[in-house]
Amino acid sequence: MTATPVARPDEVRRHNRTTLLRFLHVGGPVTRATLATELGLNRSTIKTLVDGLAEAGVVEERVPRPGRGAGRPSLLVLPQPQAAVVLAVDVQVEHVAIALVGLGGQILGRNSWNLRGRTREPDEVITHVIESATILAGDLGCEPVAAGVSVPGVVRRSDGHVHEAPNLRWTDVALGERLSGVLRIPVLVGNDAELGAVAEHLRGAARGSSDVVYVSADVGVGGGVIAEGSSLRGAAGYVGELGHMAIRPGGRACYCGSSGCWETEVGEAALCRALGLSDDTPRGAILVELRELGRDPAAARDRLAEFAEWLTLGLVNVVNLLGPQLVVLGDLFTALPEAVLTAVAEEVRRRSLVSRAFGGTEIVCSALGADVKLLGAAEVAFERVLDTV
Amino acid sequence: MTATPVARPDEVRRHNRTTLLRFLHVGGPVTRATLATELGLNRSTIKTLVDGLAEAGVVEERVPRPGRGAGRPSLLVLPQPQAAVVLAVDVQVEHVAIALVGLGGQILGRNSWNLRGRTREPDEVITHVIESATILAGDLGCEPVAAGVSVPGVVRRSDGHVHEAPNLRWTDVALGERLSGVLRIPVLVGNDAELGAVAEHLRGAARGSSDVVYVSADVGVGGGVIAEGSSLRGAAGYVGELGHMAIRPGGRACYCGSSGCWETEVGEAALCRALGLSDDTPRGAILVELRELGRDPAAARDRLAEFAEWLTLGLVNVVNLLGPQLVVLGDLFTALPEAVLTAVAEEVRRRSLVSRAFGGTEIVCSALGADVKLLGAAEVAFERVLDTV
Repeated sequence: MTATPVARPDEVRRHNRTTLLRFLHVGGPVTRATLATELGLNRSTIKTLVDGLAEAGVVEERVPRPGRGAGRPSLLVLPQPQAAVVLAVDVQVEHVAIALVGLGGQILGRNSWNLRGRTREPDEVITHVIESATILAGDLGCEPVAAGVSVPGVVRRSDGHVHEAPNLRWTDVALGERLSGVLRIPVLVGNDAELGAVAEHLRGAARGSSDVVYVSADVGVGGGVIAEGSSLRGAAGYVGELGHMAIRPGGRACYCGSSGCWETEVGEAALCRALGLSDDTPRGAILVELRELGRDPAAARDRLAEFAEWLTLGLVNVVNLLGPQLVVLGDLFTALPEAVLTAVAEEVRRRSLVSRAFGGTEIVCSALGADVKLLGAAEVAFERVLDTV
Repeated sequence: MTATPVARPDEVRRHNRTTLLRFLHVGGPVTRATLATELGLNRSTIKTLVDGLAEAGVVEERVPRPGRGAGRPSLLVLPQPQAAVVLAVDVQVEHVAIALVGLGGQILGRNSWNLRGRTREPDEVITHVIESATILAGDLGCEPVAAGVSVPGVVRRSDGHVHEAPNLRWTDVALGERLSGVLRIPVLVGNDAELGAVAEHLRGAARGSSDVVYVSADVGVGGGVIAEGSSLRGAAGYVGELGHMAIRPGGRACYCGSSGCWETEVGEAALCRALGLSDDTPRGAILVELRELGRDPAAARDRLAEFAEWLTLGLVNVVNLLGPQLVVLGDLFTALPEAVLTAVAEEVRRRSLVSRAFGGTEIVCSALGADVKLLGAAEVAFERVLDTV
């Protein structure tokens, strides 16, 4: 139970300014008139706010192209990407990507490198991220004001401590502290699937949906939850680990200490087994095999029947436990043959009590492709700095 | 993304009044000094608010018993139960309980009746609830200002529509509308486990914990989630159905249309099977058997080994998906032998990746006993009316 303090006028002004900026950042250019309607503020308040932001170089105003309406058109307000730039870092098991992202969510520049066959030692990864970020910022001539980092593991949100990132073989890495110590900007670290959910919710397949689960398969399987419009976090800021749902009692041992985890049945290695490929098949070859298989829907359903059943079971659980209106599948799942995805979606709706109650949870593929975690990482960084821009 | 409108002074005053009333309602009598500290308001604001509430008969002020401190003691503020009374209804599979609950959460009077061997037709249950409530209100000489109803099923929160309550054999019952149409007060209907979670969070074993899952076994198995201090609801206001997590692939068919649901492995019928009792053993006899078994810890662990394994698996999933700091077990689970509960709690902590990350999810038994859902139902009713008291 929390008490809200009485708001002072300058607090109200700052709050309204941040709300307006967030609206532009997420929604892109809009007219002053739309801002007034959408934010429930009167036109003179909007004018004062926008004038202030324009003066500070945070937005630009333009006369929109002539439309059909009569009268003087409302000015279009555009966020200026360079007004606030954040560093986004996506640490994956096989590669690391970094980007500088401007206000409005545009990627201004990027770099990435492979970890295959290289060391994944935290020290080396951290050093390389810092070097790359410095070079990129120099090339683009801009200084990031905050950083967001995506890691496939259990992360403490408050200070960016990575407790366990099993597929990276990281344990207790003070990632947030170490990066912010050198970069001298706030660094926010998040679980990769959580950040994927954030990105899909703000900019991807889940725009406008308030209750969403994002589930993705990379080497591991993870999930992020948006509940009533916000990221769901458990105790101490840790998000859930959907991939370690026990789904096959007596199943294969999982590195997490349990057995029969969902990840062991629907992760990358499981997909390789289902396709008759060896465990260490490169990602590219898996994708080629899946595309090939997709040409024959009947064969695809048949060959991936068991895989699809485990995928279905896990999704039924996710839907029954969390009741989302939308499930967004990411990464490797998006490469599954259309026939398999359709069959899984139908089965999940049929078998889930909760989905039936409100006419069916929708199951769709990610709209943001390979950039999803990078964009999610950028958003948690923006979240932290939008009120100071 | 929502914009908060600019607060007007009278809105601020009303907001502070409701916050103060909620604090008293949940926390019980406190001094003015504590109110000022806890709500972050200055003493003169507290004085104005408390004076107004005292004048309206909503609170009473008393000089506390002399303490150790020097100087004039701060006045103790007590909520007046009769100032706002709500009707709480707990529809269970085997019986219905109703109560009138006063401000502060005290049960002022109650009634209940058995459904065993009687019809569970919605019409009859609704008629009986209305009659009983009217008699009870007459006896106590008070008029409820709102009602909360707990139902073991999938409920649409917005209008109290019961979509499916399988163990009651109810489908599409407009319970909220029908009750409010006759009672002429707001009626809030909730899933029983959701309301159990609310009650434990506000008044029971989960006080002070912000991330809690309440799991209970009655005839069915249900769960309610408190995330960051509030009730978690999925799309369209439906809460999750933990009992229908698919936990045993290829297991027994469940009435929900799926098979191997958690409920089929750890519900009342499953417990009867584990104890070697027939499916229709009365609750009392099950409890006697469990108490008997509890006297021999080794035998209890042995005889309930398989049952405990399914309970563990489901709880590992709940913890891995939702990351609660606390799991509260309710109803029949609280009657399990101590040795079994301890072993289950240890195993869940050991096997759950998320629990390990923050030093272990605690697993405890409900502190509210048989009244838990009644108290939860009262709270959702109070939630609706506290700002109008």
